[in-house]
Amino acid sequence: MKKIDKLVTNSMGKRVPSEVNGKPAIPFRGVGKYIPKGQNYGATVASCASFPTDGNKLVGSLKESLVNAGLNNGMTISTHHHFRNGDLIANQIFDIAAEMGFKDLIWFPSASFECNSYLIKYLEDGTIHHIEGSMNGSLGRFTSEGRMKGLGVLRSHGGRYQSVQDGEVHIDIAIIASPTADFFGNANGIDGPASCGSLGFALVDSQYADKVIVITDNLVPFPCVPWQIQGNYVDFVVKVDKIGIPEKIISGTTEITKSPDRLYLAELTARFCEEARIIKDGFSFQSGAGGISLAVSVYFKEIMIRQGIKARFARGGSNKYLVSMLEEGLIDYIIDGQTFDLEGVRSMRENQNHVWSSPFTSYNYHSKGNFAQLVDVVILGATEIDVNFNANVVTHSDGHLLHGIGGWQNCLFSKTVILTVPLFRDRIPVIKDEVTTVCGPGELIDVVITERGIAINPLRKDLIEKTKNSGLPIVSIHELKEMAEKFCGKPASPIFTNVPVAVVKWVDGTILDTIWQVKPSE
Amino acid sequence: MKKIDKLVTNSMGKRVPSEVNGKPAIPFRGVGKYIPKGQNYGATVASCASFPTDGNKLVGSLKESLVNAGLNNGMTISTHHHFRNGDLIANQIFDIAAEMGFKDLIWFPSASFECNSYLIKYLEDGTIHHIEGSMNGSLGRFTSEGRMKGLGVLRSHGGRYQSVQDGEVHIDIAIIASPTADFFGNANGIDGPASCGSLGFALVDSQYADKVIVITDNLVPFPCVPWQIQGNYVDFVVKVDKIGIPEKIISGTTEITKSPDRLYLAELTARFCEEARIIKDGFSFQSGAGGISLAVSVYFKEIMIRQGIKARFARGGSNKYLVSMLEEGLIDYIIDGQTFDLEGVRSMRENQNHVWSSPFTSYNYHSKGNFAQLVDVVILGATEIDVNFNANVVTHSDGHLLHGIGGWQNCLFSKTVILTVPLFRDRIPVIKDEVTTVCGPGELIDVVITERGIAINPLRKDLIEKTKNSGLPIVSIHELKEMAEKFCGKPASPIFTNVPVAVVKWVDGTILDTIWQVKPSE
Repeated sequence: MKKIDKLVTNSMGKRVPSEVNGKPAIPFRGVGKYIPKGQNYGATVASCASFPTDGNKLVGSLKESLVNAGLNNGMTISTHHHFRNGDLIANQIFDIAAEMGFKDLIWFPSASFECNSYLIKYLEDGTIHHIEGSMNGSLGRFTSEGRMKGLGVLRSHGGRYQSVQDGEVHIDIAIIASPTADFFGNANGIDGPASCGSLGFALVDSQYADKVIVITDNLVPFPCVPWQIQGNYVDFVVKVDKIGIPEKIISGTTEITKSPDRLYLAELTARFCEEARIIKDGFSFQSGAGGISLAVSVYFKEIMIRQGIKARFARGGSNKYLVSMLEEGLIDYIIDGQTFDLEGVRSMRENQNHVWSSPFTSYNYHSKGNFAQLVDVVILGATEIDVNFNANVVTHSDGHLLHGIGGWQNCLFSKTVILTVPLFRDRIPVIKDEVTTVCGPGELIDVVITERGIAINPLRKDLIEKTKNSGLPIVSIHELKEMAEKFCGKPASPIFTNVPVAVVKWVDGTILDTIWQVKPSE
Repeated sequence: MKKIDKLVTNSMGKRVPSEVNGKPAIPFRGVGKYIPKGQNYGATVASCASFPTDGNKLVGSLKESLVNAGLNNGMTISTHHHFRNGDLIANQIFDIAAEMGFKDLIWFPSASFECNSYLIKYLEDGTIHHIEGSMNGSLGRFTSEGRMKGLGVLRSHGGRYQSVQDGEVHIDIAIIASPTADFFGNANGIDGPASCGSLGFALVDSQYADKVIVITDNLVPFPCVPWQIQGNYVDFVVKVDKIGIPEKIISGTTEITKSPDRLYLAELTARFCEEARIIKDGFSFQSGAGGISLAVSVYFKEIMIRQGIKARFARGGSNKYLVSMLEEGLIDYIIDGQTFDLEGVRSMRENQNHVWSSPFTSYNYHSKGNFAQLVDVVILGATEIDVNFNANVVTHSDGHLLHGIGGWQNCLFSKTVILTVPLFRDRIPVIKDEVTTVCGPGELIDVVITERGIAINPLRKDLIEKTKNSGLPIVSIHELKEMAEKFCGKPASPIFTNVPVAVVKWVDGTILDTIWQVKPSE
């Protein structure tokens, strides 16, 4: 049985552990209220004298590289998720670790996918102690059931960078699956059979891990250009036959929704942005990779063509819709954090205005500013939103942890944050009195758009003023909640034990909320 | 009178200070013998909460930015030298500091040029305590005369990166003159009236300085792409009318020598490389920006066309000769550390295979390898070379400090290092019994090419073997020295006092040699 950590109450009124996996944790103090002091973590100093004079860092196998890197009990092992559900490397690492008898490893992925549910057996047999990173699907359910030894730690993409940079997470060994690399360790994601575009999620791992392993199935002569990952940070390079499954790297989910309800939601969102005069010459936007978000881009495009304007930049995951806008001159730049389809990869390869970026440039909150705050409007989703505009993206209303945070928290610093959601899903209201888990404080969420009405945060008097005669269905958030309850009834609250199973970090490393063990059914 | 520091003898037999400007110093222990321990310096942690929410970091003037950055007595102020003799910013910084009455500043440029001899008055009045960086021309002479308060510290480009990364030099304020920038602080050198190509010398300053100021005369809307300097590191942005004098940024010295003697030297060097079978398909090379080095590239080109081969990459300063080779398909990539002419700037702007790099990628010795060691052959110059192949690039035979080290030391890790020099200059031998100042240990120098003979380091038996029937004028280094003395006589040794005026650091931060005060003439 997991020991119950000491709990404190944070500024959101949430009970959170004061210690996470044996390390002291700072409770959330409010947006922008916790100002860190001191120095960033300094990586372990290296010397060229300790590396091959000819720059050739190739070793024979992943296992050999892990042995050379000093794999040992209790180490923190990091991977990236640019291959999404087509990743062939993360599971192999723990196969090797298990075969060698290592225990209590911490897996620190930038995100996990359903393909990684394979690792449940290693969570059960003690090879892996716990996961720090998003736990989607089966791994989330496993965690919610209280079956993981340590506490899960959920961070945003920017929070992951922050945690390593600040020394909160020390990576012992980073394994960077790289679609193209040279023997020195320079690597990129834009060429090769497993091409995935950006490799930005692995940047912090390369910069700060004690040992860095690049593994590739496409070894090219030095120099591998561009070097999204710099070989100067890399200890070992491994060449294998296959690092990813291309058709699963480039996900089939990146097609526009065909659902009329969702298309209506996307259209309403675009109309709102037009009426609020957010869409104007030189503006910027970010919308995610889901079906609604993709459709929003298409409606934006129509409005921009009609108005004869262009955007300065689009940020976020790239896809064929954004690429078409870039190539038609409707966008000056795509600032790409992860690349969702082959058109995105092609564009990044060919077009200097399709720029690869990283959680450092875009999202790191412990930085002298970041790109997210420069985006005029961001369109995001949520699993739940409450009447104080607080929102949840990690748990469902039944209390189960089923999603990661991604860049969602980081994007809340955009100038206008819109959550576009259906009013209810499977007859469960999305708008509620209180969200199961707070991932984003309501003060940062400006607009909630549903198919039956749009609620504007009262803090955004400017948006209320601009849209008051627009004919848009503007209502209060309370009205939205009541409409939802009229259709679905008042939702039952999930039943939890008093055992924390994971924590949700805020972008500054403080603890925003706790995820509790879901009470097993009798 | 400067106090005489305690001296120790290093592994080259050189007397060097055990303390430099109040900090303990490590004497040189031999190539690859000093292995650092511990962690790199961690920059001061920042928070977005302390920066403008809209990302706009513009302030009204350079003075305002320096005041905001907390300019104070004794601080270390850094600048880069990409504008060479056309720099308009470094002198202004110290005008402001002097006007405000600050004293004992340390100037930490990546190099200084003759235009900076203006700063001698501030070295004299105590505004600047000392310079850590190359001191060419008048500043060098000033130092050699013992007139600078502190000890000068000469580092290679890679050593400068290493010193900051390792925490040996703490930069309080970095001022980065940027040909193009946005209000967030993203900056590059490829666009704008003062375009200079790469901004790589300023990379370490941006990453580690407490406060970073970007100053530009070409402000563009966010995002400034490419961001060679990342705005996430930048505190303040200043827009002024003019940051550099274009015709002095792009130096007129980057033309091929017209001297028949020097052309012969260049041709001989290329012939040597061909006979030694260094020039082969897929090879790589670096040659500097001097007239001889440029001519070497042209002879290389002829050989490559004749042999029907191409180079994988050329490293180093770029210029129109390298660009023509890139565009004609004779080189796959230029890896550019500093850009010497407008053709280089244009090519970097247009061609993704003309890659901007930095002292981190190319030269930092406290790294997991660097690019310099991957270069097949590098052609460099020297002021003096001794019979043990030790070489000098900073002082002249009269003992005066007149040059910086640049990337010279870093390039000694190339697979074959050739020093191409005239046998004597102004009737003073270049090949001597002992160099005035050791900048590079002889074990790293493979070949000395003069107009009257080529000496191969006995350690390079392979090169001796490959060229023995080549018809090239292969002689011993002692024969070269004797030839030089036959023409010029035995050179008089410079006369020094026992007062150190500067130290030469090795690439690992240890002290390789001391530069002594030149004895004033009676």
